[in-house]
Amino acid sequence: MRSFASDNYAGVHPEIMDAMFKANVGDMPSYGEDPVSGRAVDLFKKHFGDQAQIYFIATGTATNTLILKHITRSWNSVICSTYGHIHVDECGSPEAVAGIKLITARTANGKLTPDAVVEQMYAKGFVHHSQPAVVSFAQCTELGTIYTVQEIKDICDAAHNEGLLVHMDGARLANAAAALGTSFKEMTVDAGVDVLSFGGTKNGCMCAEAAVFLKPGLGDDFRFVRKQGMQLISKMRFIGAQFERFLADDELWRQNALQANSMAALLAEKAAQVDGVKISGPVEANGVFAFIPEDCIAPLQEKCPFYIWDELTGEVRWMTSFMTTEQDIDDFVAALKETLSNRK
Amino acid sequence: MRSFASDNYAGVHPEIMDAMFKANVGDMPSYGEDPVSGRAVDLFKKHFGDQAQIYFIATGTATNTLILKHITRSWNSVICSTYGHIHVDECGSPEAVAGIKLITARTANGKLTPDAVVEQMYAKGFVHHSQPAVVSFAQCTELGTIYTVQEIKDICDAAHNEGLLVHMDGARLANAAAALGTSFKEMTVDAGVDVLSFGGTKNGCMCAEAAVFLKPGLGDDFRFVRKQGMQLISKMRFIGAQFERFLADDELWRQNALQANSMAALLAEKAAQVDGVKISGPVEANGVFAFIPEDCIAPLQEKCPFYIWDELTGEVRWMTSFMTTEQDIDDFVAALKETLSNRK
Amino acid sequence: MRSFASDNYAGVHPEIMDAMFKANVGDMPSYGEDPVSGRAVDLFKKHFGDQAQIYFIATGTATNTLILKHITRSWNSVICSTYGHIHVDECGSPEAVAGIKLITARTANGKLTPDAVVEQMYAKGFVHHSQPAVVSFAQCTELGTIYTVQEIKDICDAAHNEGLLVHMDGARLANAAAALGTSFKEMTVDAGVDVLSFGGTKNGCMCAEAAVFLKPGLGDDFRFVRKQGMQLISKMRFIGAQFERFLADDELWRQNALQANSMAALLAEKAAQVDGVKISGPVEANGVFAFIPEDCIAPLQEKCPFYIWDELTGEVRWMTSFMTTEQDIDDFVAALKETLSNRK
Amino acid sequence: MRSFASDNYAGVHPEIMDAMFKANVGDMPSYGEDPVSGRAVDLFKKHFGDQAQIYFIATGTATNTLILKHITRSWNSVICSTYGHIHVDECGSPEAVAGIKLITARTANGKLTPDAVVEQMYAKGFVHHSQPAVVSFAQCTELGTIYTVQEIKDICDAAHNEGLLVHMDGARLANAAAALGTSFKEMTVDAGVDVLSFGGTKNGCMCAEAAVFLKPGLGDDFRFVRKQGMQLISKMRFIGAQFERFLADDELWRQNALQANSMAALLAEKAAQVDGVKISGPVEANGVFAFIPEDCIAPLQEKCPFYIWDELTGEVRWMTSFMTTEQDIDDFVAALKETLSNRK
Repeated sequence: MRSFASDNYAGVHPEIMDAMFKANVGDMPSYGEDPVSGRAVDLFKKHFGDQAQIYFIATGTATNTLILKHITRSWNSVICSTYGHIHVDECGSPEAVAGIKLITARTANGKLTPDAVVEQMYAKGFVHHSQPAVVSFAQCTELGTIYTVQEIKDICDAAHNEGLLVHMDGARLANAAAALGTSFKEMTVDAGVDVLSFGGTKNGCMCAEAAVFLKPGLGDDFRFVRKQGMQLISKMRFIGAQFERFLADDELWRQNALQANSMAALLAEKAAQVDGVKISGPVEANGVFAFIPEDCIAPLQEKCPFYIWDELTGEVRWMTSFMTTEQDIDDFVAALKETLSNRK
Repeated sequence: MRSFASDNYAGVHPEIMDAMFKANVGDMPSYGEDPVSGRAVDLFKKHFGDQAQIYFIATGTATNTLILKHITRSWNSVICSTYGHIHVDECGSPEAVAGIKLITARTANGKLTPDAVVEQMYAKGFVHHSQPAVVSFAQCTELGTIYTVQEIKDICDAAHNEGLLVHMDGARLANAAAALGTSFKEMTVDAGVDVLSFGGTKNGCMCAEAAVFLKPGLGDDFRFVRKQGMQLISKMRFIGAQFERFLADDELWRQNALQANSMAALLAEKAAQVDGVKISGPVEANGVFAFIPEDCIAPLQEKCPFYIWDELTGEVRWMTSFMTTEQDIDDFVAALKETLSNRK
Repeated sequence: MRSFASDNYAGVHPEIMDAMFKANVGDMPSYGEDPVSGRAVDLFKKHFGDQAQIYFIATGTATNTLILKHITRSWNSVICSTYGHIHVDECGSPEAVAGIKLITARTANGKLTPDAVVEQMYAKGFVHHSQPAVVSFAQCTELGTIYTVQEIKDICDAAHNEGLLVHMDGARLANAAAALGTSFKEMTVDAGVDVLSFGGTKNGCMCAEAAVFLKPGLGDDFRFVRKQGMQLISKMRFIGAQFERFLADDELWRQNALQANSMAALLAEKAAQVDGVKISGPVEANGVFAFIPEDCIAPLQEKCPFYIWDELTGEVRWMTSFMTTEQDIDDFVAALKETLSNRK
Repeated sequence: MRSFASDNYAGVHPEIMDAMFKANVGDMPSYGEDPVSGRAVDLFKKHFGDQAQIYFIATGTATNTLILKHITRSWNSVICSTYGHIHVDECGSPEAVAGIKLITARTANGKLTPDAVVEQMYAKGFVHHSQPAVVSFAQCTELGTIYTVQEIKDICDAAHNEGLLVHMDGARLANAAAALGTSFKEMTVDAGVDVLSFGGTKNGCMCAEAAVFLKPGLGDDFRFVRKQGMQLISKMRFIGAQFERFLADDELWRQNALQANSMAALLAEKAAQVDGVKISGPVEANGVFAFIPEDCIAPLQEKCPFYIWDELTGEVRWMTSFMTTEQDIDDFVAALKETLSNRK
């Protein structure tokens, strides 16, 4: 049975796998000097503008940590959500690898607000206090919610007004753009985002992430940070090949994201009808958060893997992916029903 | 006029200055191999037990950061109060110098509780989550409150039960021991504390802090951490001399701390009688927190320096020191009265 | 024309690509909990023993840096060759990411000797001196030479006698094993090596490296270091698939390495016969070092990419790979001849 | 008997101790905002120019490491002598605290040359190679030799020509200025040095070092680096008091240094006349390097402490200080004679 544990339990989209296969011809320069990577970079510029500086990376953790390292000095802090992936889910990588202090701000449904950011801007210039330099937030958020373009603009305006740079963790940016029906550009560079972690892996790639600097010149010298940060893949052409297919004009990225999103909506709709299930937050992208009776969690996990999101409250998380089908949803909801009815 | 900004605005106790003067005879081995430092170490062992391992250091920030670095691996986090000096007042030193992730826990009157600590112990062994290894708290706290010996024992028990080490930031340990009428040992090694930042500077020394490892063997090899951490003072005898006097049998440390504490109590008592002044928290050591009319803060600061504690609420902090006298209190309260009455 | 710049200019062996394709079926747990990775780990244990602890990683730089981070404390140094890849070719990653001090020792033909290692073992316990904890050397070396099994044993014995751990950078371990006609085990665990960076990428994989801890228990908790070190690939099955094919019983790794090695030997033999070419070092694996007239370097590079190894002396490096054919060698030697004769 | 182990075995000059005593009056702002520190900063500017930015620090290791951290990015390396204190005598502090890669260059009598610096400037812009950004050298050198003003100018010119900044480790700058009969300014800012570690401790202070940024603006924001680097002394006035006396118009610094230097010259002269003693290098400041029969080292050390400089060759080092007297020299030479004659 299909897993609902994470969108990274899915494999690779067949057409992306095929693109990697096709890139495997003859010798090519390593470390990104190859023509495949060159074409992929050009596609990124088509999406984000000619000023964009693009660096391919293998993991999302590295993309986030190395970007933040690059745009801070050691005495700077980064403001993020209390739920921020960089704060709770990267095993202290920003602190240990980059020496960065994270400052957590309150959120509404997982989303930062301009007020929550500005609230952290005290003790400016006070030498005992780490000085905030960046706001970092995820689109989609860790709670599966999505910032509107206007909400992004408002945060960027507030941040810039305070002298902060804006970093967006776009591990699931495709899901957000698909849900809102926008281009990548509208919700990033046009809204004021300075630098983006762009994710392909969760939406059908094998391992393809990119640090995309949107503010002109901000990515200068980042190539040294990437190499030193142990992320300069030698046979880079195979990341280039993934992105070339992912970002092609037929918008495979959007097709994949729409499939994942619509399956989450379907799951939420059908699961909500099961007695004993409570959907606990808005379903805007490809994640469904819910409460089910605590003694049903383990039996259901045995049938189909998923994560407990909050150990204290027992809230669970179900993720869909580009590979999830209606049949998968039906099977899972059937298993859910069965588990809950066995209980009574 | 006397300052109420910080206990480090005070100078050096004359007898400690005199001890430094007396240590200035002839050549002595550097880096702590001298007889003066040796005698001071022996005094520490008299206070904390023969198993204690003692390392002199020049600043409190270094003492905290280097201890935490020594007792963690890179994937460990440290649980501390949201008010923790290590979190808000060391310019990101634990993160930048030692790569440590700090996890903030809620407090009551600035004091951690066993429950607040245990609450942070989720996702054990989960590779994406930084693994807590230490609880760190300050005695006195940053809010001027004091843990009872029993409260310390309870936290230590809970921490050890979770496999955590306990670090106490004792920048003002003398104030706490004086207030509770206990020895240093009762509230540290006897209560279960594993390692202590021991502060002399704020209680009458010039610059004398010590990393005191209480758990046998925990301080092994710390000498390399101190040297690499840029804190191996060459003419160490002059730190030794301060501690030799501070910790001598006549308990100069206690005399100094009692003076500071009693002056804070007096200040709180007298200030509370001034119309428009509201003492905002318990006064247990040498700090007084209060609200005064916002437009009186700046005029009063011009007469006598003190800090605004919370920019959002306007709460102010008044610190006393071993040098504060009753006359100083009377002068300050008079200035306070005058400032508030000018307003009306 | 085939490149002689680096073995990472080559693509992926077709059968390894095919194995990745076959692993792309359905959902699988991420982060290495999948069955494909499980089978690959079992194969590693077949090669290195049941005690081995294996962690897949995407780049060689990360494998080296994170291993060294894991087995040192902050006050330790690592002894390596003056030519060491970790010293000259990783953009300061060991220092910046792991805070490690590298101590360079002299070599003979790029190979460390027991004497050269022991020579660095002074000032033991002296607090001002970074304390050596590890010897790290590469097999094959950066100069294309190969340690005999006995030479490895001798270094390991000397190192262990001094209390040092031994790390082998095996980015080209397959080339060495193929050249010497040994198993992986004979030149690593049997010879006393404690931990190994095992490389697949340069020998026909796409991106497949592994930290292989050979000394029992040495790899405990390394999973946190890998995650924090930004190297926990989510769709790990695709690295597992590469290794499963690479290490299979038909020894594809050895076939690939033998092809590369024999082509280097052929190239050296044929190039040496060209007037004006001087082969500058022993050709033991898949690298050929040579001097050619300085004004011929650029014209020849335009025909076929390769690197200048030493900017001062003008020595050049030609690398072969598993994809290099006799025809490639003939074409290159023809180009070499033509370039040199044009000169006269 | 006087020690010849290190100039930091000496105590504090009585007049400097007296200045500290006098600074101990009443409350003063902490962290350097006090009037004593202010006057000391003004004196520094008198010596180094109004553009100089001065930060007091307690140890030389911290001064060097934090300066280098401030003026590099993570992918930069620092070129230094193979004898460099930052390389061999700071327990890996630059690497561990600041992530800096050190590149060692050859020297003549402990002194770098322009050629030796330029030799390390290869692989510029090559992403795999740590990019040199700073040349760091000590005046006096670790071998007790002194760069002439012209030699400093030549290195600065070569460095600036390569885009490098120049850092001078002036732990014994006073000894050099006294020996050459120059001002501090002539051998630093006038010669092109960009930033200086200025040492007072070894020349009669208790603990007084300073980071002195000479290039305009280079020290901006360093206050955050110092605080985060755990070196912001709270009762800073007592460092200020030391420098105020040390740098006063009667040039106490020069008197102290001249005394130390002349005693070293005297020691070298008299020791050279002892049969079996060979002075091994030029004696230009306050250090004497020598060979004596190996079996005489330990017996002589028991009479008077000194260090073996080189464990391999048995070379010893004798340091004089501002407290060394002619009588001390005579006593030591007598002990030397006695030890050597006992041997025969």
